[in-house]
Amino acid sequence: MAKVQYGNRHLLYPQPAVIAGANVNGKPNYLTIAWCGIMQATPPLIYISVRRERYTLPGIEENGTFSVNVPSTDQATVTDYIGIRSGKNIDKSEIFTNFYGELETAPMIEECPVNMECRLVKTIDFEGTHIIFVGEIVQTHVNEECLVDGHPDGAKIDALIFTTDGYYWKLGERLAQAHNVGQDYKPG
Amino acid sequence: MAKVQYGNRHLLYPQPAVIAGANVNGKPNYLTIAWCGIMQATPPLIYISVRRERYTLPGIEENGTFSVNVPSTDQATVTDYIGIRSGKNIDKSEIFTNFYGELETAPMIEECPVNMECRLVKTIDFEGTHIIFVGEIVQTHVNEECLVDGHPDGAKIDALIFTTDGYYWKLGERLAQAHNVGQDYKPG
Repeated sequence: MAKVQYGNRHLLYPQPAVIAGANVNGKPNYLTIAWCGIMQATPPLIYISVRRERYTLPGIEENGTFSVNVPSTDQATVTDYIGIRSGKNIDKSEIFTNFYGELETAPMIEECPVNMECRLVKTIDFEGTHIIFVGEIVQTHVNEECLVDGHPDGAKIDALIFTTDGYYWKLGERLAQAHNVGQDYKPG
Repeated sequence: MAKVQYGNRHLLYPQPAVIAGANVNGKPNYLTIAWCGIMQATPPLIYISVRRERYTLPGIEENGTFSVNVPSTDQATVTDYIGIRSGKNIDKSEIFTNFYGELETAPMIEECPVNMECRLVKTIDFEGTHIIFVGEIVQTHVNEECLVDGHPDGAKIDALIFTTDGYYWKLGERLAQAHNVGQDYKPG
């Protein structure tokens, strides 16, 4: 296979397209983020990477809380809108049905099937374009209709998928069970 | 919509299923990771979260380099195998066609359509289950047949997708163009 050297580019596939939430000046504000990931199981840590100049940033720092909301594919248009319009110019507090959980200051989106409320535990500044906020997940809220036998179901959550080439996608075929399909693999 | 409180659980959707690479005792070793994400654009940073006891960990620390390889859906079985078998028990150096890039010590997988070679810039230890390695991407290698007009194409890369409920998936329908479909959204 011929390989092309494409430069020092971040070509991770797939990426999520989540909506981060924080109170800014006392009102819910949201921004769309693909640069987000789980860091640890116990205690459960998640990060979001936020461009330095974003309106939401001081809200996270002030409250020490934020949320990560997972939109469904039927929310692709509003998710994109939240990402391309700044809270500096528009009021995002009435776009969704907001709710709060244990932390009381991390606004969450009722319309999203999964919501994680997070307590800020570390801010990492690489002195580049972004600030990284690491949060401990204190509670995860899931739409009841996305549970099967009491557990969240990937197909029912139907999360929006982002790829670096600039598209939103839907989940396709379910290929195999993880931690299982490789059991009988024989190398070489 | 009724919300269920599911506890402090990391329910991020979707997640990648990448294969991280590092030399361990002078030989290529690989492990499968879903907890991986982009952190910053300039300089480009990516992290992988590695369970403390994993065989690959001292290799990353010793060399100060690692790779992130993005498998295609046709590599689901071997990707799972790499994740459930430890380099402590099996030799993973001959499973793939290995190659090295600029860093010379970060082994990459020719069979994967995208490979990022990374220089370790920060190790983060939250004193929990995992160690977080943040790498600066120094070069990204892409299979020539995955380029369209010179740029990587999400559909051709056909990356394996992981969901927390324990399944691998294929990309489905391409829904919309990001930074575009939300332009004309009118709230309310």
